Amino acid sequence: MGPLQIKEILQTAPESQAVTVKGWVRTKRESKNAIFIALNDGSTIHNIQAVAEPGQFSAELLLTVTTGACLKIEGQLVASQGSGQAVEVKINDILVYGAADVDAYPLQPKKHSLEFLREIAHLRPRTNTFSAILRIRHALAFAVHQYYNDNGFFYLHTPVITASDAEGAGEMFRVTTLDLNNLPRTEEGAINFKEDFFGREANLTVSGQLEGELGAMALSKIYTFGPTFRAENSNTTRHLAEFWMIEPEMAFFELEDNMNLAEDFVKKVITYALENCKDDLNFLQNRLAEEEKNKPQNERSIPLLEKLSFVVDNPFERLTYTEAIDILLKSKPHKEKKFQYPVGWGIDLSSEHERYLVEKHFKRPVILTNYPREIKSFYMKLDEDGKTVRAMDVLFPGIGEIIGGSQREDNYEKLLERVNEVGIDPQTIWWYLETRKFGTAPHSGFGLGFERLVQFVTGMGNIRDVIPFPRYPKSAEF
Amino acid sequence: MGPLQIKEILQTAPESQAVTVKGWVRTKRESKNAIFIALNDGSTIHNIQAVAEPGQFSAELLLTVTTGACLKIEGQLVASQGSGQAVEVKINDILVYGAADVDAYPLQPKKHSLEFLREIAHLRPRTNTFSAILRIRHALAFAVHQYYNDNGFFYLHTPVITASDAEGAGEMFRVTTLDLNNLPRTEEGAINFKEDFFGREANLTVSGQLEGELGAMALSKIYTFGPTFRAENSNTTRHLAEFWMIEPEMAFFELEDNMNLAEDFVKKVITYALENCKDDLNFLQNRLAEEEKNKPQNERSIPLLEKLSFVVDNPFERLTYTEAIDILLKSKPHKEKKFQYPVGWGIDLSSEHERYLVEKHFKRPVILTNYPREIKSFYMKLDEDGKTVRAMDVLFPGIGEIIGGSQREDNYEKLLERVNEVGIDPQTIWWYLETRKFGTAPHSGFGLGFERLVQFVTGMGNIRDVIPFPRYPKSAEF
Repeated sequence: MGPLQIKEILQTAPESQAVTVKGWVRTKRESKNAIFIALNDGSTIHNIQAVAEPGQFSAELLLTVTTGACLKIEGQLVASQGSGQAVEVKINDILVYGAADVDAYPLQPKKHSLEFLREIAHLRPRTNTFSAILRIRHALAFAVHQYYNDNGFFYLHTPVITASDAEGAGEMFRVTTLDLNNLPRTEEGAINFKEDFFGREANLTVSGQLEGELGAMALSKIYTFGPTFRAENSNTTRHLAEFWMIEPEMAFFELEDNMNLAEDFVKKVITYALENCKDDLNFLQNRLAEEEKNKPQNERSIPLLEKLSFVVDNPFERLTYTEAIDILLKSKPHKEKKFQYPVGWGIDLSSEHERYLVEKHFKRPVILTNYPREIKSFYMKLDEDGKTVRAMDVLFPGIGEIIGGSQREDNYEKLLERVNEVGIDPQTIWWYLETRKFGTAPHSGFGLGFERLVQFVTGMGNIRDVIPFPRYPKSAEF
Repeated sequence: MGPLQIKEILQTAPESQAVTVKGWVRTKRESKNAIFIALNDGSTIHNIQAVAEPGQFSAELLLTVTTGACLKIEGQLVASQGSGQAVEVKINDILVYGAADVDAYPLQPKKHSLEFLREIAHLRPRTNTFSAILRIRHALAFAVHQYYNDNGFFYLHTPVITASDAEGAGEMFRVTTLDLNNLPRTEEGAINFKEDFFGREANLTVSGQLEGELGAMALSKIYTFGPTFRAENSNTTRHLAEFWMIEPEMAFFELEDNMNLAEDFVKKVITYALENCKDDLNFLQNRLAEEEKNKPQNERSIPLLEKLSFVVDNPFERLTYTEAIDILLKSKPHKEKKFQYPVGWGIDLSSEHERYLVEKHFKRPVILTNYPREIKSFYMKLDEDGKTVRAMDVLFPGIGEIIGGSQREDNYEKLLERVNEVGIDPQTIWWYLETRKFGTAPHSGFGLGFERLVQFVTGMGNIRDVIPFPRYPKSAEF
């Protein structure tokens, strides 16, 4: 559909055939014998080189052919004389769709900081780094849909606006149409949310899991892939106020099936990127090496492609939380009091502990299971000992927790007890509880933060750089 | 991944092999010679029949095997004696995962109204109708991703929370973390939104188009597929407060390319459903016929599959708005004053006009183009005559507008003029305007309301029945 793209033209055998190329100027270079224009249309990281003779075009026209200008070039596709490309375009005609004033256009061909590019997020997809990230993000998203479709899962659109606050995963954004300058009041003087759009208080969802479970208890295997929200005032490189989450839920899956799915899923999706995004991954691998070239050797990351292949090729280490605590207690950093936070059964593992397990001890992704019930959510299935729950966290090098999941509590009484224990009003999730009343079944699921995955695959350090228009405290531009 | 599902088991050759079936009881029937249990796991519209001998199981156990109960059945897969299925399971063992009390479980095997089922949206996916709809919804969503991926588009996640109100497509939901009982004030006494989460007023997006265009002006071809929101207080069968929209945006596409894409896209996606959802479509075709059986012959819909094949097999009629007005002015209902709303150049076509064109005059989908500028959005490209814009609406039988799009205004001055004309502060969309300043290019795009498409393909009359958990005025349950 539509005109031939540069990606396709670059793969075409040059036979001096007529060709039309449309795209944005990356660079223009003039030598004694020729004018070289590097054009990019975002279909690939590679530019196409178009060549004109000196004097073939007016100086006036050539003045508008600057970095960022959009051109239509007609010419012939010929074998390239230079190195670096197999084909190039011998220009017959140039149409400038739109110029880009050299003094005003911020994306001149020089190195820009990621911080600066974040301020011009409307233009940064025109850089090699961000176009590569966005193409990889697309490939990963497609791989997710393909994986679940191939495996008999149904994509379930769970609601974004929700009146339930049950997941308790963090602070929520309020959604309202009330006039804040003229709030309706009850006779008692409280805000009257019955007059709000939904007739009650409403928020942006923090997870589609609870509704996802409703789907699984009818269709057996479902997944969600949609935006989720956290109103946490955290300005870190790991958190966004709006991010995309993938949450499969499966009837008849117990904890081990859940682990098998999580490991297979994440490996297949990364494999897809390795097979379909070679050029972009190579570019980002070099970018990362360049970024780290001033670091001491032992602090540099392993090359991106090597890291991804390693994850795909090796089984994840599986062990219980209790076993992990034992390893940490016997570890050198614990004995030498090098950990910042204390280690002991019952603690919520901190990032330094997770990194020790993944990066130092096992040197591979780790799946930790059977966490203490106190540090996990109410909906996780209690183990027989009553102390731990059938949780599983998948920990990745550099990223930490990339997947969190569990077998779900399928016993109505036990679930209700936990709901009350954590202080949720059972009335607000009557529909969730009813799935345990009517035809309950063992079932499991997990959540994967999509941006964490994109970070891992692209090697980008800041989560704000792997989503087109990041949302975080004090920032909702674009 | 996971246990074998009923869909797969039903396609397996019966050789008395051991088989385990897990699912929910649809019906149980006891005869003198046998007990028949129809089990469904949501993987297909078809149940699997499991057969036990009278006396093989205790009366106590069989009392818990009722509609809605969840079972694990172990047995042998054998050729079925009865008609209606090729294979069945000869039961060796039954495990009841979860019973469903006959007096409490609302989904007993009888006819339920769609209104009643909406009140138990947590359970309705367990019905044939809703499981069929959700499987088709999944197939259509997958087909969308596959289509764009195959055609070189990149999936762009545009933001849900936005500070720009530029699209002007309708009322918006406010997103806030301010304490409504203690609103921060400026010195002048106004609400101080600088203290809100994003440091400014923020809303839920009504469209990803503007951000989509930013993507297209870098990557050439992008599409969005995400939730969008309208805070309109309309209780109709055609509107939701939260719905999913697909919005492709393409650099270097003019109006005709845009029409070609829209027609090809919607045909391919429907073809995918026809090829992959035969059983579910057949079921829904029969459902619709049953629903309409008391209507007079001439008011009944054409059979669902026939309607879908017709759309796929025939070219859409393309004409300008001006030509459409001419046809309406010459039409019988106009001459006989049967239209409720007057016809004349400049009007916003109403549903009765669109239906006349699609269902009576052309008897096929219609693409109307070049609408008067006054009734279309500011971002649509002005035609040379200055009176019309390069808009296109795709109109479908029964549904009306299913796609709305246009070539976008790519001229900075003309766009700015329109922005000012409609009263948008250019400062709020500086980033959008800049794409016309730096390397502007002809480009186009459109939006398709996903639920409208699902309605068309499933034949469901109410949009609340084609999304798992609908959001509308006074309703945000589940």
